Amino acid sequence: MAIVEVTIAPLGTGSPSVSRYVAECHKVLAQEEGVAYQLTPMSTIIEGDLDRILTVIRKMHEVPFAAGAMRVSTSIKIDDRRDKVSTMAGKLQSVKEKL
Amino acid sequence: MAIVEVTIAPLGTGSPSVSRYVAECHKVLAQEEGVAYQLTPMSTIIEGDLDRILTVIRKMHEVPFAAGAMRVSTSIKIDDRRDKVSTMAGKLQSVKEKL
Amino acid sequence: MAIVEVTIAPLGTGSPSVSRYVAECHKVLAQEEGVAYQLTPMSTIIEGDLDRILTVIRKMHEVPFAAGAMRVSTSIKIDDRRDKVSTMAGKLQSVKEKL
Amino acid sequence: MAIVEVTIAPLGTGSPSVSRYVAECHKVLAQEEGVAYQLTPMSTIIEGDLDRILTVIRKMHEVPFAAGAMRVSTSIKIDDRRDKVSTMAGKLQSVKEKL
Repeated sequence: MAIVEVTIAPLGTGSPSVSRYVAECHKVLAQEEGVAYQLTPMSTIIEGDLDRILTVIRKMHEVPFAAGAMRVSTSIKIDDRRDKVSTMAGKLQSVKEKL
Repeated sequence: MAIVEVTIAPLGTGSPSVSRYVAECHKVLAQEEGVAYQLTPMSTIIEGDLDRILTVIRKMHEVPFAAGAMRVSTSIKIDDRRDKVSTMAGKLQSVKEKL
Repeated sequence: MAIVEVTIAPLGTGSPSVSRYVAECHKVLAQEEGVAYQLTPMSTIIEGDLDRILTVIRKMHEVPFAAGAMRVSTSIKIDDRRDKVSTMAGKLQSVKEKL
Repeated sequence: MAIVEVTIAPLGTGSPSVSRYVAECHKVLAQEEGVAYQLTPMSTIIEGDLDRILTVIRKMHEVPFAAGAMRVSTSIKIDDRRDKVSTMAGKLQSVKEKL
């Protein structure tokens, strides 16, 4: 189980808005089984088996190209903890308990 | 108005858990006026005047050192859009409308 | 052909120094065929087929665990351009010509 | 003394190429005193006093706007180590000694 944050941004499209690309990426993500995810104002965070998540992200990375982009910048941050089960909800809870 | 994502991680502490450092950073952030923020499982996202946000992040970056860390890795991602007002809520809404 | 930047950092190792983990990751990378790479003071940059690179990074991500780390934070940034062949040397050259 | 990696990318410019923006940012950087830097195929790495570097990056972040961009995505990664003096050359050397 890992938690992975991903941002997929097309470069050189004619508009500063990228929300339609993000929405298309999410439609791909929504069809996948075995991964939980949440959208934030800056990224998508995915929880599940690391290899499964990387396979899904690889598909999502193709989405802006399929929509016409010629260059895509994809940032991935993997948080992989193996001394205990780590979840999105558990990480938030752990911080909130200390506030 | 900019939206900025930040992650502040101490390196070389004796434990894989970093939630107490995140909580201390949030206490500093909570005392600041003029910035809105939200905690995600992977980062903190802050909305407001860019210079104000960078000043706040500079303070937050010192927190793990004050708590004993000898090395801190801080990642900052600025999303600065000037053709329209951009907010955390507006970005989420814009994607959700297209889903 | 894509260009991918990767940083692999263990958390909670007890020492602020991580160079031995970086060196071990590079030994894995050096055994791979079909990818070019360079070490920078902040990351490793790899050039080649995207799927090949992601497979290599997946192996590298396991290295700190094999060396005893319990938590690993891996950041990956993919620059994938399909309107022309993009290389590490070509990107540097393109900027230098404009200076 | 800190080492800071920065990438400044305009969104929505109409062309996948961003090298002219990178070159303009470097012209600003080249005028600054007290910071050492190097261009990599994926970023710029700057070494010096942290507050000084952040002031310089703040100036660089304005460059694409001045050149017409309406949205700029700037990624900053600070590596701040206080148990010893850390330099770009020293970090590379430390890894190479272990290879």
